Amino acid sequence: MDPNSVTYQAEVSAGHFQVLAQDSGTHARRGCLMTAHGPIQTPAFMPVGTYGAVKGMAPWELSGIGAEIILSNAYHLAMRPGAEAIEAMGGLHHFMGWKGAILTDSGGFQVFSLKGMRRVTDEGVEFRSHIDGGKRFFRPEDVVRNQEMLGVDIAMILDECPPAGAPREDVATALRRTTDWARRSRAARRREGQLQFGIVQGGLDLEMRAQSAGELQEIGFDGYAVGGLSVGEGRAETLAVGSHTVGLLPQGKPRYLMGVGTPEELVRFVAAGFDMFDCVMPSRNARNGMAFTSEGRVVIKNSQHRASTLPLDPDCDCSTCTNFSRAYLRHLYVSGEMLSARLLTHHNLYFYVNRMKRLRSALENGSFRAEAASMGVDLDQMESEERGIQ
Amino acid sequence: MDPNSVTYQAEVSAGHFQVLAQDSGTHARRGCLMTAHGPIQTPAFMPVGTYGAVKGMAPWELSGIGAEIILSNAYHLAMRPGAEAIEAMGGLHHFMGWKGAILTDSGGFQVFSLKGMRRVTDEGVEFRSHIDGGKRFFRPEDVVRNQEMLGVDIAMILDECPPAGAPREDVATALRRTTDWARRSRAARRREGQLQFGIVQGGLDLEMRAQSAGELQEIGFDGYAVGGLSVGEGRAETLAVGSHTVGLLPQGKPRYLMGVGTPEELVRFVAAGFDMFDCVMPSRNARNGMAFTSEGRVVIKNSQHRASTLPLDPDCDCSTCTNFSRAYLRHLYVSGEMLSARLLTHHNLYFYVNRMKRLRSALENGSFRAEAASMGVDLDQMESEERGIQ
Repeated sequence: MDPNSVTYQAEVSAGHFQVLAQDSGTHARRGCLMTAHGPIQTPAFMPVGTYGAVKGMAPWELSGIGAEIILSNAYHLAMRPGAEAIEAMGGLHHFMGWKGAILTDSGGFQVFSLKGMRRVTDEGVEFRSHIDGGKRFFRPEDVVRNQEMLGVDIAMILDECPPAGAPREDVATALRRTTDWARRSRAARRREGQLQFGIVQGGLDLEMRAQSAGELQEIGFDGYAVGGLSVGEGRAETLAVGSHTVGLLPQGKPRYLMGVGTPEELVRFVAAGFDMFDCVMPSRNARNGMAFTSEGRVVIKNSQHRASTLPLDPDCDCSTCTNFSRAYLRHLYVSGEMLSARLLTHHNLYFYVNRMKRLRSALENGSFRAEAASMGVDLDQMESEERGIQ
Repeated sequence: MDPNSVTYQAEVSAGHFQVLAQDSGTHARRGCLMTAHGPIQTPAFMPVGTYGAVKGMAPWELSGIGAEIILSNAYHLAMRPGAEAIEAMGGLHHFMGWKGAILTDSGGFQVFSLKGMRRVTDEGVEFRSHIDGGKRFFRPEDVVRNQEMLGVDIAMILDECPPAGAPREDVATALRRTTDWARRSRAARRREGQLQFGIVQGGLDLEMRAQSAGELQEIGFDGYAVGGLSVGEGRAETLAVGSHTVGLLPQGKPRYLMGVGTPEELVRFVAAGFDMFDCVMPSRNARNGMAFTSEGRVVIKNSQHRASTLPLDPDCDCSTCTNFSRAYLRHLYVSGEMLSARLLTHHNLYFYVNRMKRLRSALENGSFRAEAASMGVDLDQMESEERGIQ
């Protein structure tokens, strides 16, 4: 709550990103990222709409919960309905009726998940479509072009994402390719107003992470993501490698941690200095009947909620919590009603997006550590854990 | 368009139902039914929310499309979560967050669909729960009590609904039981402000229909439904028996045709004199990718919509049609996105509810026949068909 713990910066770089406040006790910062579809207040959580829709949610509900940017996937959209088709229909924003900003993942992660269906060369990646089984080839330049056709605000480059536990040699090869592809991607961009982010790879090896971060900065991107985490490694490793790597990235650019994580991890990685996050957890868990609340996880099918007239989260003012009881939500879930997935998704995404909003306010007010504590995250403990690991 | 074709009636009965206008050329009428949760303008379509939820729709969206009353099912709710449970949580309206009126079907139709799992006696019906397989027994009085616990606005009595093609003897037995159960149901009612409707049975036999209608009126109900149609008979028979039977019901009470039908059938049965309708078709077909539009049925997965920037229905101002293209809706459907079912359900229910609104306006303005024609229904042809059948 000490106002001196925040340093307001009249951000020097005349770029698209401004750091508005820097927490003095941690690496957390409060920023603003300008996109072609408006400003994104950071730290920000991006709801995931892989196929051009956030499962069960109408676009006006996403604005309603305060989301300013969503994530979609250029690989999935290229497979169906096709980037050309979406361009011909006015671009992805118009196609899905979303007026806010869109970031698309390149699909590198998805292609590399197609085990036995893909072959990687220095030129690019050959794979079989998960839709029709047909052979396709993506060069990094194709991925840039696809995202320019989609007309998104932020495009991720094609990277090679090795699985957790990959041999050091494979991680090194993936790193070399990712840098090479990053250079080609940067050279291939044509679309004005679209931001392009590089992706740091290097597995759990801190030296390789430093090499990757350095090489990407040499190329120069509008923002930097840390990829290759939450791919099967332990959570302590995620925290250690993520926290280390963010420190290798430039202060004046947005820093995005891909695919992470729990509500508690979000707080920890904001403290570490990340500005942007995406994760399927709030929406996927909602479909499985699990809600994130101020009182912890709620598994809605549990019989303890059978006659509960309480809202999911007594501290929440989302439309699910203000209109329905746990008993009703449980009834919908056990009856197999799709309204269950919709209402729980709405709540969970609101919980994530609103958590970011609260952290932003705390960063403005110099109360970040106290706010983190109110969310059940002890930053002192986190710092000593990190020291223990290093 | 002739204003003389409508007779405004200062409705004589000081009851809950008023006929506000009577079309002179058909049996169609414009009415208003008072319930404990507000007036229902008739003719009215009731969206179906069997398990206490209209699939995919939030209650505020149901109000938004103009629905004043929805249908739920007392049998399904009694099985899960239980009528007592819902009563303890403040009644069905509060449970599901719906401020409008609710009619519950008794579940007679559902219990009689549980082939091999039920045994009917004059006392009531024994059946196995479709949830836990446990034996249950419903007397007509239990069904009244359940609906009183739910606190709904309109309760249907327990009836016996024979399948299409049942032997005359079975239809006669079902009719006798339905009348007997109706008498017991009427005697069992306790709850002030809840309306109770009788259900006319008698299969396709017009004499038995007349007998059933007469016996129910002797008992006296707040409204009358025609049941046992759309259970497998031909559509011409549905029309002939429905149109005949509605003429046997009192003018001063609401007349409800259960489980019917297509958008065209609704117009025909409004012309025949029915005031209330329910049908799963708009919501079920939506989940299967079929939309009702002013230009006819649209099967959204058809490849012709692949690149269509047109709305589902160019004549529709619902949120689905004003925000999304056919191409996007097709993409959602073929991608298995639940938003597809939600958006198509929204449109189809709006189409049904709005069709009723347009018919009400036409009845007020004396333009019913012209409005029916604009909906593709030729009432002259319908009348000659009926004469042909009789």
